[in-house]
Amino acid sequence: MTQTSHPSDKALVPFVSVDHMMQLIHRIGLEQMLRELAGYIEDDFRRWELFDKTPRVASHSAEGVIELMPTSDGEVYGFKYVNGHPKNMKEGLQTVTAFGLLANVDNGYPVLLSEMTILTALRTAATSAMVAKHLAPKGARTMAMIGNGAQSEFQSLAMKAICGIDTVRLWDIDSKATAKCAANLAGHGLRVVPCTSAEQAIEGAQILTTCTADKQCATILSDNMVGPGVHINAIGGDCPGKTELAPGILSRAGVFVEYPPQTRIEGEIQQMPEDFPVTEIWEVITGRKPGRRNAEQITLFDSVGFATEDFSALRYVRDKVKGTGLSHMLDLLADPDDPRDLFGMVQRAAPAEM
Amino acid sequence: MTQTSHPSDKALVPFVSVDHMMQLIHRIGLEQMLRELAGYIEDDFRRWELFDKTPRVASHSAEGVIELMPTSDGEVYGFKYVNGHPKNMKEGLQTVTAFGLLANVDNGYPVLLSEMTILTALRTAATSAMVAKHLAPKGARTMAMIGNGAQSEFQSLAMKAICGIDTVRLWDIDSKATAKCAANLAGHGLRVVPCTSAEQAIEGAQILTTCTADKQCATILSDNMVGPGVHINAIGGDCPGKTELAPGILSRAGVFVEYPPQTRIEGEIQQMPEDFPVTEIWEVITGRKPGRRNAEQITLFDSVGFATEDFSALRYVRDKVKGTGLSHMLDLLADPDDPRDLFGMVQRAAPAEM
Repeated sequence: MTQTSHPSDKALVPFVSVDHMMQLIHRIGLEQMLRELAGYIEDDFRRWELFDKTPRVASHSAEGVIELMPTSDGEVYGFKYVNGHPKNMKEGLQTVTAFGLLANVDNGYPVLLSEMTILTALRTAATSAMVAKHLAPKGARTMAMIGNGAQSEFQSLAMKAICGIDTVRLWDIDSKATAKCAANLAGHGLRVVPCTSAEQAIEGAQILTTCTADKQCATILSDNMVGPGVHINAIGGDCPGKTELAPGILSRAGVFVEYPPQTRIEGEIQQMPEDFPVTEIWEVITGRKPGRRNAEQITLFDSVGFATEDFSALRYVRDKVKGTGLSHMLDLLADPDDPRDLFGMVQRAAPAEM
Repeated sequence: MTQTSHPSDKALVPFVSVDHMMQLIHRIGLEQMLRELAGYIEDDFRRWELFDKTPRVASHSAEGVIELMPTSDGEVYGFKYVNGHPKNMKEGLQTVTAFGLLANVDNGYPVLLSEMTILTALRTAATSAMVAKHLAPKGARTMAMIGNGAQSEFQSLAMKAICGIDTVRLWDIDSKATAKCAANLAGHGLRVVPCTSAEQAIEGAQILTTCTADKQCATILSDNMVGPGVHINAIGGDCPGKTELAPGILSRAGVFVEYPPQTRIEGEIQQMPEDFPVTEIWEVITGRKPGRRNAEQITLFDSVGFATEDFSALRYVRDKVKGTGLSHMLDLLADPDDPRDLFGMVQRAAPAEM
């Protein structure tokens, strides 16, 4: 049966597997890919007003959350499936796994399916560093990396590639995580300083990145730990009931967010009153609003991750896999010769009589 | 590199392609599959109160809509991606394409990815017939099938397999669609009567199914066409601005819906006041509310398609593909040996130095 063995081109959707994504990273080079991704993400923040934006659609359970994050620029539609299950790590599973899809708005046909567990780590790091480029104090060279889990190496290398840091000071409640991160970063051109406390980690750092995974209100940074002039990149507080910073820090800082309706539910500012003033990061990127006001100001990027960042990352992957062979064609869409004849297509797929 | 060539079991997600779905249908038999699907769908309506329900998340454009339809029963999470683009047909594309996913609520890991273009046609037909079993007049043997597109054969055979109809009267604004439907239904044990008008099609029919695709308020059935005692299965009115029935019919009928918050936006009742009384179909299935009150009543299933129906269909496919070989394993999830060591996994996937 021709129909069963040769689906038409329209029926086939390119799929980028985990293996293909890893090959793509090695082909481009991780730091180059982080820089290019940051460019795509920044471009999409510049055309922020064009996007169909909605807070993510979350299904919460006792153990975690499963989310769908859709958006569209009017020509291309994208969404990401992502889970967050802090307890997974103890069972040898990823806390966060993800995949995503792009489709044509014009006809609704999917045009790319991609793994996004690795890609999410990359886009999160690229976003953090792109924002730090706008907000961190001039000449920042040292980052404290608090929380040395799956994100930590990507964050460190993105800050090196995009903001020019040369030193990372690592701390994690679990010293094995710090040892893992330090070992992974060896040979990547960063001075790596493992520390034994958060206080020690932030000594001399101009950028403080917090990325811990407990699903609870925790105080990873207390008010008295944070001096003037630093940039805080807070990425671990990303769902209701999960925060990392003492409220006192928020009160003293200029707070920058992706999409306020989502951040007020999920971010560090869930601890603050509903009218707590924030600046949307797209306004800084487009020059509508000032970013850092002076050398003494504490700037805080209260990042929860937004759908446009995934959209940018999927756009990037779509552009980059072209012609590389780094995708499988997936028989995902039924495409009968006559679109009204789905039934006939199914009938013709019957196995031949013996 | 072991990591790249052998992803762990946890990283792999079974994928049911279009070809595999068609093979599954032929292995089980279409009418048997429709009956079994109706059973799964009915079972899930019986445990309606358990589900995490939300109106679908729609992204509308001038040409159509792309929707995500998530739900969860607390143990399993599912969602469907589906588009609706009426103009696609003219370009040789499907009006509706879809795929879906099931995941474990407990850890967020996907456990099934499946084509759903064909499966949606099956679940829609199975839902229609399951509901008609509850609402249609006793001894209904003839269905008028108005709109002879991609859904029409599935609707006809589901009504035969589940409600025992023996005659379908076909009508479509395009006589080629009617000829296609009649040809496809030949040899399936139904008396098929092609008609030249909607009025002729509904003569002597106890069940009237409307399934047309124009994205506009149309009057496929006018008030004076519908006599007492029939059951109307209205499945074409399924998005804002798209209806098929004259409001007068709604006023005279007992109206049954899937999920009122969604149907009031998308269904036939979008034409009626916000407090227009409807009965939720799960209440009829569980015996909480009466269905058809008497032989003269017009019953109307204002069906827009709900996420639990897709969830039921995906559960069914998951159960049925087990052990058949009718799925590919997809390298969708990154699964490093140490969950915190995503970076190490990527590094170890580097191609060997030459």
